[in-house]
Amino acid sequence: MQTQKLLVNGERLKSELEAFAEFGLTSNNGVTRLALSEEDRLARNYFCECCEKAGMTVKIDDMGSIYATLPGIEEKPPIVIGSHLDTVKKGGRFDGVLGVLAGLEVVRTLVDNKITPRIPIMIVNITNEEGARFEPSMMASGVLSGKFDKETMHNKKDEKGITFEQALQEIGYAGDIRNRLKKATAFLELHIEQGPVLESEGLSIGVVEAVMGMVCYELEITGESDHAGTTPMGMRKDALFAMNDFVHEIRQKLNILDSELVYTVGRVNVWPSIHTVIPNKVIFSLEARHKNTEVVREVERLIAEQAKNIEIQSGVTIELKKLWERDTVWFDETLVKMVEDSTKSLGYSYKRMISGAGHDAQFMNTIAPSVMVFTPSKNGKSHCEEEETSWGECEQGTNILLETVLHLLKN
Amino acid sequence: MQTQKLLVNGERLKSELEAFAEFGLTSNNGVTRLALSEEDRLARNYFCECCEKAGMTVKIDDMGSIYATLPGIEEKPPIVIGSHLDTVKKGGRFDGVLGVLAGLEVVRTLVDNKITPRIPIMIVNITNEEGARFEPSMMASGVLSGKFDKETMHNKKDEKGITFEQALQEIGYAGDIRNRLKKATAFLELHIEQGPVLESEGLSIGVVEAVMGMVCYELEITGESDHAGTTPMGMRKDALFAMNDFVHEIRQKLNILDSELVYTVGRVNVWPSIHTVIPNKVIFSLEARHKNTEVVREVERLIAEQAKNIEIQSGVTIELKKLWERDTVWFDETLVKMVEDSTKSLGYSYKRMISGAGHDAQFMNTIAPSVMVFTPSKNGKSHCEEEETSWGECEQGTNILLETVLHLLKN
Repeated sequence: MQTQKLLVNGERLKSELEAFAEFGLTSNNGVTRLALSEEDRLARNYFCECCEKAGMTVKIDDMGSIYATLPGIEEKPPIVIGSHLDTVKKGGRFDGVLGVLAGLEVVRTLVDNKITPRIPIMIVNITNEEGARFEPSMMASGVLSGKFDKETMHNKKDEKGITFEQALQEIGYAGDIRNRLKKATAFLELHIEQGPVLESEGLSIGVVEAVMGMVCYELEITGESDHAGTTPMGMRKDALFAMNDFVHEIRQKLNILDSELVYTVGRVNVWPSIHTVIPNKVIFSLEARHKNTEVVREVERLIAEQAKNIEIQSGVTIELKKLWERDTVWFDETLVKMVEDSTKSLGYSYKRMISGAGHDAQFMNTIAPSVMVFTPSKNGKSHCEEEETSWGECEQGTNILLETVLHLLKN
Repeated sequence: MQTQKLLVNGERLKSELEAFAEFGLTSNNGVTRLALSEEDRLARNYFCECCEKAGMTVKIDDMGSIYATLPGIEEKPPIVIGSHLDTVKKGGRFDGVLGVLAGLEVVRTLVDNKITPRIPIMIVNITNEEGARFEPSMMASGVLSGKFDKETMHNKKDEKGITFEQALQEIGYAGDIRNRLKKATAFLELHIEQGPVLESEGLSIGVVEAVMGMVCYELEITGESDHAGTTPMGMRKDALFAMNDFVHEIRQKLNILDSELVYTVGRVNVWPSIHTVIPNKVIFSLEARHKNTEVVREVERLIAEQAKNIEIQSGVTIELKKLWERDTVWFDETLVKMVEDSTKSLGYSYKRMISGAGHDAQFMNTIAPSVMVFTPSKNGKSHCEEEETSWGECEQGTNILLETVLHLLKN
């Protein structure tokens, strides 16, 4: 343990997290702060005010993302710390906002200690990570990376028919394309894990090496809709039982494919869904995630093979549609190692891990070397009002960012 | 083959079936004639007119059922032939109406041949067999049998909030409780099979011995809703996978329980039904039908046992709710034998069978010795616009009714 290590102010971080939880506070101590909503506007305004008070200059880009910069001695691409201030409906007090306020706390600590950084430090609030009001998620970072087209995104509508562009203008955050972040020395994102692994292993920190690759299929099984009472079992083309067989058999195969594979049948619809009628149609999603592309490809092969088997066995037809896929995004190993060393030097318990969820950092990684730090999620819960991470763990995560920034400033 | 056998007029039967198909004809040659609708009113009016022209007297009871009586020489309980004129939405041209018009054709044949029956012959149109507009199905026969309460039924509302009683009055068919059928010599119902068995075995007629007993359960599985990407497989409480295991394993057991058992998972709902979220709730129906009560009881035992197993295996909770059940209704064996003999004497191919679907006859059986005759359903289809039975088979079924009536008149 080093004795003179610079540390953040955990109490101040906690106060700011509590202050931001007020913007959209729900009756169950959660937060509803949809992108570009009035709650978001108030949170953004307060965030800008805090940054300016800390001596930072604030710029807004054409997607409404906020960049607050603490000037450096040298005119170099900034070290960027950030995440998102928006939440899902009835979300929690930590998802996203933790990563933005950790940046603020790092800057405040530098300022308190009269450290003028060698290169600029930037805090970024990336617009609409959740995609809860305007789909898709990770919208603004996707535009920054070139994955999404700006015009298309500006025309996305919420359920009331308001476009993203209108909403941007309404809250006063329609900025300039010239303010977009184009280059950075590093991008650091602190985020809650949104899963149960750290808690269950009794660890405080996840050093995130990658965002896991995934594939998502939609399967449509068509059988025949007959009378449940008059159709002998052998004369049925039951779409639901065909789905049952498919899911049963694919699970047997996926369970032995790789112990780290996760897969989910999340969305299911059955027609006509009447208890006395044999279902003639089932549409369901099957998504699978794994860090290795070969494993994901094997999942796809098994899905196609199994669909054929079931068609033959059950006399149904099965249509496969790939809804989307992404390859695993590996973060910059030098940066990952630097974060790992920072964690070790602070004496925190940790493991290297792969994020199963998507994050802005996966897109920011195309602009700058990126890395993420995870803090534990109580009971693995997120995107809900019960979402919780201890104040101590929030502070530890922020200390890792500070330590990593200090490393980067030394180089 | 007897040479002098009295036969019905197949052409006339066909014309009337075609005429009735006009009341609610759909663009795909199906019929939508919901109970007590304007289409039903027009069909009823025409039916009454036909009966009166044939010398019958028409009475309406307090459930709107129509009784048309051809007087007999003796004042004895009538021989009743009937079924229902209502259909489901986008139903077919045969379900129900065939049994009513077969009665009309039998009477017309008797009248044509100047046969005054020894005892009265009655044709009945039983209100709301389908339950498509006002639940439950078999409503008026259920009231006749004492299974359903009249007041409760009169207060049933359609989706527009119109009560059964209001609808009865609106179409002018609110009759007198004193006109209810209380006693009959026999009740004969000709109906389409609504299943594929007769067609697949190349048979023209089903002599129906019973309406199969059944039980219908609703199962509610509660697990935990977690992030599909961040929750390792071993830490999930996936309600959908628990349902999948339940259905898979119960199918293995039910498939070997009895070859005549039919069972269906018809209604399925999954929450939250988002592809990136592990389902925390699945509610589904499981119904099973078999003629032997012991088999149905064993199904219930297996459902309960399997639910417990899955709870232990998957860490979910499963609530079981029995939605309804009915015991097998065995028809009068003397009457079944008489119908079988009639069928044989006419030289038609047939088999004795058990109805998997419910019918008014199951309730009429509490008032009078009852029996049913089935004609084949093309491709086993019913309750759809494609519903079809050949004219020849309709005629054969009606000839069986006539032959049986003649037998009953002799006794």
